[in-house]
Amino acid sequence: MQKVAVLGAGSWGTALAIVLGDNGHNVHLWTHRASHAEEINRTHKNEKYLKDILIPNNVTAHSELSTVVANTEHIILVVPTKAIREVCQELIPHLQHKVTITHASKGIEPETYKRVSEIITEEIPEKLYTDIVVLSGPSHAEEVSLKHPTTVTVSAKDLSVASTVQDLFINEQFRVYTSPDLVGVELGGALKNIIALGAGISDGLGFGDNAKAALITRGLAEIARLGTSMGANPLTFSGLTGIGDLIVTCTSSHSRNWRAGHKLGQGAKLDEVLEDMGMVVEGVRTAKAAYQLSKTQEVDMPITAGIYQILFEEANPRDVVTQLMTRIRRHEMEDLTNILDDQMNN
Amino acid sequence: MQKVAVLGAGSWGTALAIVLGDNGHNVHLWTHRASHAEEINRTHKNEKYLKDILIPNNVTAHSELSTVVANTEHIILVVPTKAIREVCQELIPHLQHKVTITHASKGIEPETYKRVSEIITEEIPEKLYTDIVVLSGPSHAEEVSLKHPTTVTVSAKDLSVASTVQDLFINEQFRVYTSPDLVGVELGGALKNIIALGAGISDGLGFGDNAKAALITRGLAEIARLGTSMGANPLTFSGLTGIGDLIVTCTSSHSRNWRAGHKLGQGAKLDEVLEDMGMVVEGVRTAKAAYQLSKTQEVDMPITAGIYQILFEEANPRDVVTQLMTRIRRHEMEDLTNILDDQMNN
Repeated sequence: MQKVAVLGAGSWGTALAIVLGDNGHNVHLWTHRASHAEEINRTHKNEKYLKDILIPNNVTAHSELSTVVANTEHIILVVPTKAIREVCQELIPHLQHKVTITHASKGIEPETYKRVSEIITEEIPEKLYTDIVVLSGPSHAEEVSLKHPTTVTVSAKDLSVASTVQDLFINEQFRVYTSPDLVGVELGGALKNIIALGAGISDGLGFGDNAKAALITRGLAEIARLGTSMGANPLTFSGLTGIGDLIVTCTSSHSRNWRAGHKLGQGAKLDEVLEDMGMVVEGVRTAKAAYQLSKTQEVDMPITAGIYQILFEEANPRDVVTQLMTRIRRHEMEDLTNILDDQMNN
Repeated sequence: MQKVAVLGAGSWGTALAIVLGDNGHNVHLWTHRASHAEEINRTHKNEKYLKDILIPNNVTAHSELSTVVANTEHIILVVPTKAIREVCQELIPHLQHKVTITHASKGIEPETYKRVSEIITEEIPEKLYTDIVVLSGPSHAEEVSLKHPTTVTVSAKDLSVASTVQDLFINEQFRVYTSPDLVGVELGGALKNIIALGAGISDGLGFGDNAKAALITRGLAEIARLGTSMGANPLTFSGLTGIGDLIVTCTSSHSRNWRAGHKLGQGAKLDEVLEDMGMVVEGVRTAKAAYQLSKTQEVDMPITAGIYQILFEEANPRDVVTQLMTRIRRHEMEDLTNILDDQMNN
């Protein structure tokens, strides 16, 4: 049994806190609103994010970072990508000794193109942590909190540190695997949100499963191309944090990114969609970052470009999706052969 | 405009006949029951398989093979895998000159482990055909008949023959690509039905999207392993006829294989399920063939083995799926590395 700090009491932070609680750890869940912490402790629920799910007694919510972080070796960061820098800065004064920082955020920073572990490394002095770990995979928070079988992957530069996080989380229902490919695990989780937006748009337009399957297949190929150009192992995109996470995000109405895409496909404007949802939609920011990256890396990403045009240039979703369906080359293997070449060069 | 013969008036045969009809061809659709042919011609519908869909006037149904096959260069075979040998034998006396035979059946023959194009090659003398073409991809018949955007792949030993089939079918909504990997295209379409049964079983047990995504991801890895051992290009499993078809079959209640799995997961016995469905469930026969093949090819296929046990050895579905979720190695990349090794050796 250990004390573990989970920073961020949204649906995913709360679900991970429940897993840790079920494993017998002493879990401190941080939310920046005192009233939210009070409500969680009083009701043993986090109604806004996980409705009727009961939170175990050994998970307590707090709004003071100092209390949460004191005497813990493990900090789990589960905040939106755009809040990562701010939370890291708040964290520094409270870090008394080396901690292991695990993040479960899926995004890339626009303009800097940084992955989340890179952002954390920039913000927190090296002497204050053992390593930065990422936890990612096909995992709707609702299902995890209901103890449905789930698989995720952890990765870090130092695999032995990732293994300590594996030990912390693993149980019968929540299966945790390790991967040596930190870059690929982070990029897969981030980039699949773009394709999920696209799948939602296709569904919102009333196109069927055939169109969506084509979009997912071609989308996986293009995010693997970008990932490989940034140093990821292309095979990681065939694993749980690649195709696995892509499937779960593209085919389930649980997914915020899919839901946002669905509304766009039905004709809503981006501003309305984001206001309506009232939650962070990581894919929107990531689409901008990936679009910019595809230019600098000179990687062909037609689906990402199309989604960028819908999001930021008011392109007509029907025109964009129809164009994507008809532009693919006559020989399917032309694209695939490029990936094989990439793999051979790694 | 050409005369094209489509043999098999189930949902997929009828949908393909509609595509050809929309493209202006003179389509003869063969069904072995005269009353069925008469009904299709009278109502311009195929109610049992495609409900209210209107069949164009240039598609006519017939029950005499000689009429259907006379003066055509293209025969499209769309019958269940287990009927392929019989239909080929019936066909021979009516073939007057060389034809191109395209099949759209997704299975492997138990005991012989033959792919459909191999079965056709065995049954029909070589002097009677130019080449055998396969047409496969993520394509629910219902959606194709509704003209929803769809992508499929054609392949043959002689790619120029596959291109003539591409020209026959391609239109704005029905996108057809070519692939040089005949073995991979046939195996992907056949083997994905096993994983679809597994996805249905998981859903039938009440497990969630997280579990299903893990099953699909690991399932893709194992069918790619088997395919590669049989001479397929592993990359084909990352394309439309691999992951694309797998997604559409595993995530849609349109799919017979998923539906059969779903009933099994809810506790029904195989005999009841097959009787209830009243349609061919290709995945059941293919699971047996693939299980036998995995032994002779010495390929590790835990998901296929588990499904075989549920289908033919009365194993408890909950035990099998739970075991599959917990057996995966601690390092995700161990399996993936094997695939990379396979790719490097090709």
